[in-house]
Amino acid sequence: MIGTTALGATLRTGATLLWKSAKAQARSYGQRGDIRGVYPPIATPFTCTEDVDFEKLVENVQKYGKMPLRGLVVQGSNGEFPYLTVEERVEVVRRVRQVLPKDKLVMAGSGCESTRATVQMTEQMARAGADAVLVVTPCFYRGRMDSRALVHHYTQVADSSPVPVVLYNVPANTGLDIPVDAVVTLSQHPNIVGLKESGGDVTRIALIVHKTRSQDFQVLAGSAGFLVAAYAVGAVGGVCALANVLGRQVCQLEELCLSGRWREARELQYRLIEPNNAVTRKFGVAALKQAMEWFGYHGGECRAPLRPLSEAEAQQLREDFSSNGWL
Amino acid sequence: MIGTTALGATLRTGATLLWKSAKAQARSYGQRGDIRGVYPPIATPFTCTEDVDFEKLVENVQKYGKMPLRGLVVQGSNGEFPYLTVEERVEVVRRVRQVLPKDKLVMAGSGCESTRATVQMTEQMARAGADAVLVVTPCFYRGRMDSRALVHHYTQVADSSPVPVVLYNVPANTGLDIPVDAVVTLSQHPNIVGLKESGGDVTRIALIVHKTRSQDFQVLAGSAGFLVAAYAVGAVGGVCALANVLGRQVCQLEELCLSGRWREARELQYRLIEPNNAVTRKFGVAALKQAMEWFGYHGGECRAPLRPLSEAEAQQLREDFSSNGWL
Amino acid sequence: MIGTTALGATLRTGATLLWKSAKAQARSYGQRGDIRGVYPPIATPFTCTEDVDFEKLVENVQKYGKMPLRGLVVQGSNGEFPYLTVEERVEVVRRVRQVLPKDKLVMAGSGCESTRATVQMTEQMARAGADAVLVVTPCFYRGRMDSRALVHHYTQVADSSPVPVVLYNVPANTGLDIPVDAVVTLSQHPNIVGLKESGGDVTRIALIVHKTRSQDFQVLAGSAGFLVAAYAVGAVGGVCALANVLGRQVCQLEELCLSGRWREARELQYRLIEPNNAVTRKFGVAALKQAMEWFGYHGGECRAPLRPLSEAEAQQLREDFSSNGWL
Amino acid sequence: MIGTTALGATLRTGATLLWKSAKAQARSYGQRGDIRGVYPPIATPFTCTEDVDFEKLVENVQKYGKMPLRGLVVQGSNGEFPYLTVEERVEVVRRVRQVLPKDKLVMAGSGCESTRATVQMTEQMARAGADAVLVVTPCFYRGRMDSRALVHHYTQVADSSPVPVVLYNVPANTGLDIPVDAVVTLSQHPNIVGLKESGGDVTRIALIVHKTRSQDFQVLAGSAGFLVAAYAVGAVGGVCALANVLGRQVCQLEELCLSGRWREARELQYRLIEPNNAVTRKFGVAALKQAMEWFGYHGGECRAPLRPLSEAEAQQLREDFSSNGWL
Repeated sequence: MIGTTALGATLRTGATLLWKSAKAQARSYGQRGDIRGVYPPIATPFTCTEDVDFEKLVENVQKYGKMPLRGLVVQGSNGEFPYLTVEERVEVVRRVRQVLPKDKLVMAGSGCESTRATVQMTEQMARAGADAVLVVTPCFYRGRMDSRALVHHYTQVADSSPVPVVLYNVPANTGLDIPVDAVVTLSQHPNIVGLKESGGDVTRIALIVHKTRSQDFQVLAGSAGFLVAAYAVGAVGGVCALANVLGRQVCQLEELCLSGRWREARELQYRLIEPNNAVTRKFGVAALKQAMEWFGYHGGECRAPLRPLSEAEAQQLREDFSSNGWL
Repeated sequence: MIGTTALGATLRTGATLLWKSAKAQARSYGQRGDIRGVYPPIATPFTCTEDVDFEKLVENVQKYGKMPLRGLVVQGSNGEFPYLTVEERVEVVRRVRQVLPKDKLVMAGSGCESTRATVQMTEQMARAGADAVLVVTPCFYRGRMDSRALVHHYTQVADSSPVPVVLYNVPANTGLDIPVDAVVTLSQHPNIVGLKESGGDVTRIALIVHKTRSQDFQVLAGSAGFLVAAYAVGAVGGVCALANVLGRQVCQLEELCLSGRWREARELQYRLIEPNNAVTRKFGVAALKQAMEWFGYHGGECRAPLRPLSEAEAQQLREDFSSNGWL
Repeated sequence: MIGTTALGATLRTGATLLWKSAKAQARSYGQRGDIRGVYPPIATPFTCTEDVDFEKLVENVQKYGKMPLRGLVVQGSNGEFPYLTVEERVEVVRRVRQVLPKDKLVMAGSGCESTRATVQMTEQMARAGADAVLVVTPCFYRGRMDSRALVHHYTQVADSSPVPVVLYNVPANTGLDIPVDAVVTLSQHPNIVGLKESGGDVTRIALIVHKTRSQDFQVLAGSAGFLVAAYAVGAVGGVCALANVLGRQVCQLEELCLSGRWREARELQYRLIEPNNAVTRKFGVAALKQAMEWFGYHGGECRAPLRPLSEAEAQQLREDFSSNGWL
Repeated sequence: MIGTTALGATLRTGATLLWKSAKAQARSYGQRGDIRGVYPPIATPFTCTEDVDFEKLVENVQKYGKMPLRGLVVQGSNGEFPYLTVEERVEVVRRVRQVLPKDKLVMAGSGCESTRATVQMTEQMARAGADAVLVVTPCFYRGRMDSRALVHHYTQVADSSPVPVVLYNVPANTGLDIPVDAVVTLSQHPNIVGLKESGGDVTRIALIVHKTRSQDFQVLAGSAGFLVAAYAVGAVGGVCALANVLGRQVCQLEELCLSGRWREARELQYRLIEPNNAVTRKFGVAALKQAMEWFGYHGGECRAPLRPLSEAEAQQLREDFSSNGWL
């Protein structure tokens, strides 16, 4: 596991760890900076007054803790992070870390629009127990977020982060792709260990794997929809919204890919695409939360301006699961 | 001017003003809810350590205070609002209100991603002295920001806002257009008084003016680049980044349009387009700040991840001003 | 009128006219290369077997001939030109020229994907009686249609064209904008006399007018939706699908702009936007043809793959006209 | 091979074959309607005067004929089909069919904008010897090319086509995606046997394979860049521009996928991505033709408005091949 003990020591002493050596040593499953595996980017349940429902959050995490997941992404896009205050974001991570078994990773979303806020949030997330941080691209001034700006941003963040940094590319939300050349440059940073790529362009994923392979750098698929294809070209895991609902199935998909049972993997993949589309691009977080309720988790409310599904949308959502044999 | 005295009373007593009547009564220049005129969306100067440089901010505001501007937009996109903390955003507005002559409006950007954060920020902005708030569309979950979600969001904000609300559509930053039907619905809210439209689609501007004319609702052009065209189809003012640099010229352009001197307006318009493009879509806030320095204002640094202009960009920027006779 | 007699001479003798001088001399209304005014881009009526219905075409043209239009655009986007054979395109132009009064211009769409086909089509259009040609940007390889390629293309076409050439930018169909610098370069060609700009970006229109004013170059708005705004920034006419249906009203709009009656122009403009949107971006050519039937013209069928309007679409179309007082 | 003899008979007798049964019977490699395998979409070499260079075309085809390709796509996007006349398109297909060994398929691009032109071109292609036709989506009126229009279009074409029809989705050129539901509907047509999908969205490819599996319907990847990923999710071949240059390597990639040697496939895939990007989305057909010259084929000129590569582009192109060990 990414070394939380070492982290505590770092924070206490203020010493600067030489992560380069940490990253440079051959990774084995469980070593710092190794992020292989499947992660649900967990939802944040809200009460009917739109407060964080920590009790329900904890119950969900306890269930996830029993699955063969590598860990959880906390405060990613599916956690509605832009709707939480700084204090809420940190508290959610703290609670998750308390409940989640120690051998599971907490990868915490710490991206903000400004570099200085991201640096601070990253430090807070580390203090709250995050094993790694997932840093979404700043995007409000997307016309100026070229390689120069993004390399500067991520370098500043990674230089000061107590824990390993994972780049996070999610153009559906940000309207922006980190240029491949920027990813390649950043892969050389000793404290940047990987990329969560949610764009779905598998050629891009393959190219990034290819051009970063001399580095210790790992690519995670950002969706269950193209997980098999991503594994086929060198991704080593996935951060999959659908794993909030069908966690065991996504883990099974990983296992099939890792063991080279591609035909079975493909068959399972097929049945996951429509449910996955439904809880992501088609209906979004509200659908994810609705489906969680159907499958024994606490989805809870969304914060406004996200709205609950309409009756017709909920029926379509149900159909996307049932027609593939999941309901 | 939008009634800050009434506002103070409201905040002290907690009473709910019936804005409907306020808005419904025929507006004359200077009445609450009348937002006609030209506004620079002021930049936020930072020191070399990226702290807000309040001293320089105040000096800029003092200069703007002497121009025939209607007021200032504070903490809009050109104020780098996504890069400021909640406290900084509020403090900037407070300082501006202190310095700016009382007959000038302070329109404060109070938009956040969540409805609850926007409601809170709006109240804080009003307490800090804002005469109106400018509320950008939430956009991270843009695939779900349909009319239903946006009408709900803005209605919640306007219901609770102590000051009039102005909608803010800026697709270059948000990747989103408020649907025309949502604008029309929202124009009927007693506390929603107008729209800043930055998208540059003048057909859309004309249609919105047309379909909201039975309401007391005003449209401001969101850029100096299409100001004459916007006036020609019924806009009543502009929030223009270029007015940070060429404030008197933008005011002159307004005057030419208002007095029906369209030929002269057109000639002036032509010379403002390239400088305007340069400080907005082409090079962004860094260019705006650089040009401010050339014209006697304090631009200061940008916060990261925004980068200063390269040498070549600065030369092109200069050329965009000089080839049009401004440098 | 653009000199068809001179054209005939040119074609007979093969001599190269020095268009430079023709274009350089001060234009007055009616001189070669002066394209000011309003043009409907006429629809091509098809029979129920999808053949060109020349009889109905001729009847429409006879009606348009009695209106204060400057001329007709024949085989533009609304003429379904990509659905006609080379022979049909030419024959339609020939028939229109026969019927249309001599003082009205025929501007014929002659754009094809390849330069050589466009050169040939241009010559055929001139022989068929076109007074000018309207040349849409080639677009299938849009990723490579940069300024270099487009300047080369249009220069080749204009060099060999017996009649003046008008550039045609219509990004909704082509997914492409001719870069402003390419327009400026091309405006210097003696045989390129103007631009039909359908993109609706009025800042772009103003900038093009500004940067080509030392040339004899005219800009036409490509839609009735932004006609007033375009006139306000220096356009000199419009090619307006809506003029197929409400021809007199679009001419009246032109007259109001030319005579400086901007307030009345604006009021009329408002009422034309929704009908215009309906017959263009919202429902397309099938709606244009349906509306033509309602207003006493022959719309006829569309060629497949364009489909007739559904019942619901036709009702919405009707509503867009009736709610603005036209039906 | 798709039965050209049967086709000849059909054309002679005018009889309507019941393709349903032909398609419904289990396919084996070599049966009508089975399109599995790798195809280069061959370039059309032009002379310096931009005429089709049939001699060079034939020499290229002779070389391709000796490779383990399934066949050739003739008059696809890389064949510059929009730049050829109807007669040229047909003649190119005729010549290719004459030269290509009988056991290789000729899949001919027969798509035009109108349905009637596509129907005619399809028939001409069949007479010229095409074994199947590849029909690109009409796209000029893309705003109206919804499922209804596309299903109508392709149904008309397939109903009358003497040879099997392959759908062709290439959003980079057309700005349009055939909706998945339209593909599913069309897959049920007895004469529609597959889809060439060039968009690169592997989730979409997997979903289409999944939802058409009860039909006799095959999906080909439209690019070498995502060939391994496409095979991983159920595609059965590829139409790959890069195969014009590195034909044996693309065939090897197919073989590695088919034999389940995914690790080796991945390694080869990596080295093909940058060369593939260079000859497609980055530099286009001119780069493909340049690279063909380097690898012993005749690329020849492009037709205008496509321009030859600049010196700098050619160097980058070379680097994209050499850095991956191909030059």
